[in-house]
Amino acid sequence: MYAARPTPPDRITSPQNPRIKEVLRLQEKSAERRRQGLTVVEGARELSHAQLAGWRVAQLLLCPELAGETLTQALQAAPPAGELLLVSAAVFAKLAVRERSDGVLAVLHTPRRTLADLQLPANPLVLVLEAVEKPGNLGAILRTADAAPAHAVLVGDPRTDLYNPNVIRASLGGIFTVPTVAAPMPEVLAFLQAKGIRTFAAALAEGVNSYTAAHLAGPTALVLGTEADGLTPATRQACDETIIIPMRGQLDSLNVSVAAAVLAFEAVRQRGQ
Amino acid sequence: MYAARPTPPDRITSPQNPRIKEVLRLQEKSAERRRQGLTVVEGARELSHAQLAGWRVAQLLLCPELAGETLTQALQAAPPAGELLLVSAAVFAKLAVRERSDGVLAVLHTPRRTLADLQLPANPLVLVLEAVEKPGNLGAILRTADAAPAHAVLVGDPRTDLYNPNVIRASLGGIFTVPTVAAPMPEVLAFLQAKGIRTFAAALAEGVNSYTAAHLAGPTALVLGTEADGLTPATRQACDETIIIPMRGQLDSLNVSVAAAVLAFEAVRQRGQ
Repeated sequence: MYAARPTPPDRITSPQNPRIKEVLRLQEKSAERRRQGLTVVEGARELSHAQLAGWRVAQLLLCPELAGETLTQALQAAPPAGELLLVSAAVFAKLAVRERSDGVLAVLHTPRRTLADLQLPANPLVLVLEAVEKPGNLGAILRTADAAPAHAVLVGDPRTDLYNPNVIRASLGGIFTVPTVAAPMPEVLAFLQAKGIRTFAAALAEGVNSYTAAHLAGPTALVLGTEADGLTPATRQACDETIIIPMRGQLDSLNVSVAAAVLAFEAVRQRGQ
Repeated sequence: MYAARPTPPDRITSPQNPRIKEVLRLQEKSAERRRQGLTVVEGARELSHAQLAGWRVAQLLLCPELAGETLTQALQAAPPAGELLLVSAAVFAKLAVRERSDGVLAVLHTPRRTLADLQLPANPLVLVLEAVEKPGNLGAILRTADAAPAHAVLVGDPRTDLYNPNVIRASLGGIFTVPTVAAPMPEVLAFLQAKGIRTFAAALAEGVNSYTAAHLAGPTALVLGTEADGLTPATRQACDETIIIPMRGQLDSLNVSVAAAVLAFEAVRQRGQ
């Protein structure tokens, strides 16, 4: 389907063009992304993060009017593998989500990474998210994982697909730099146990150990559930310890991406990094 | 303008009704909010947080179809001060922003709080945000401030108004529970100095002290700038110390609300709370 690049490429000027409709379908439908093993990323910076991480480009859509001369020439001189399509500003506007777009959009082959593929260091710090729902939260956690760093983000029983364009956008590149695997939650927990990684269930209710009193300096997996409901009872019971971020205000809970960051950076602090 | 409640209230069925247009204007225009000293909040839970915090209700808009019988009766039996307007589902849909709305929307008088009004405890923890731009980030920081807790959030030279409905929504009630004041940055810094509160400038670049090595257990103000540019040089120089959250990944920066949370919870940890 994504054959050799035609030379010179035709410029697509109709948003009704079937190739454009195909990209829109990939942006909107997770089933389509899964079926084809493809996703869509916007922006030259994100594209370069993806390429550095070894993701393969199926199709590059470039709008010279928006990209400007320098970027257009750079991409035309050293185009990524895959097909190059030049599109008009009107067509690009149909595809772009960002406010200030740079005229670059790419269809990428998504990696088919499994737990068995993960390469972890000797003393790993892993973030585990059960049933994460909001792409923005998953993206924010990937961004935090890059910085802390956490060595992997494992998503158990996801309710959003990892390669949702909103996840990619919110991660600001974290989806490319942080090894990320989705799997059924029991498999995630079995994997961590087999690797000797201690699992810490982040609880929402009071009455358990504060995270600052837990020993997070060894091989550690921080396991978080949804903001509304926390972890499922099965997962909570399967974890080695339960910890809590004490909340002393009048409201109900921290944002899950904030909670993940507070826990991850405490683990990093304990490691003396 | 917001006179005694008419009994029985008429039900507004046209989105073109001038009262409805007035509420829409308040939602959309910060200049209008400032001029009238009003803002708009959606949801029964947010309204009750606002009332607990002493905010006065100018107008309550209630859609009985969406609110359901129990909530409608409760609000009609003990209505907040101010005017009660019953509106149709079509009218409410024009006003509501949330996906699952509960049929409650209120126009509130915003507090005119100044730095001089702030009541701080003996050993305060304060978050200071310079030139914060995104309502979602300010809201998320207010939510974190409620939980940590931080005793006040001071916004210097804001580029979004504190009472932007998107701030209120993202704060999940934090705008009501956390004392929040906007003021020119020099006034904020002078206020902190006068109160003997040590200011820690959060830097983006490397080469300064890690936040975990700083002494954050005394009267502390954590001062953060924008994600893109950090603090202005003037503010950085005016602060007592510079700290950094070491980032060891491949990307550029943490989300500002994540950075604020990591710093605030480290200060709380050092206080042995």
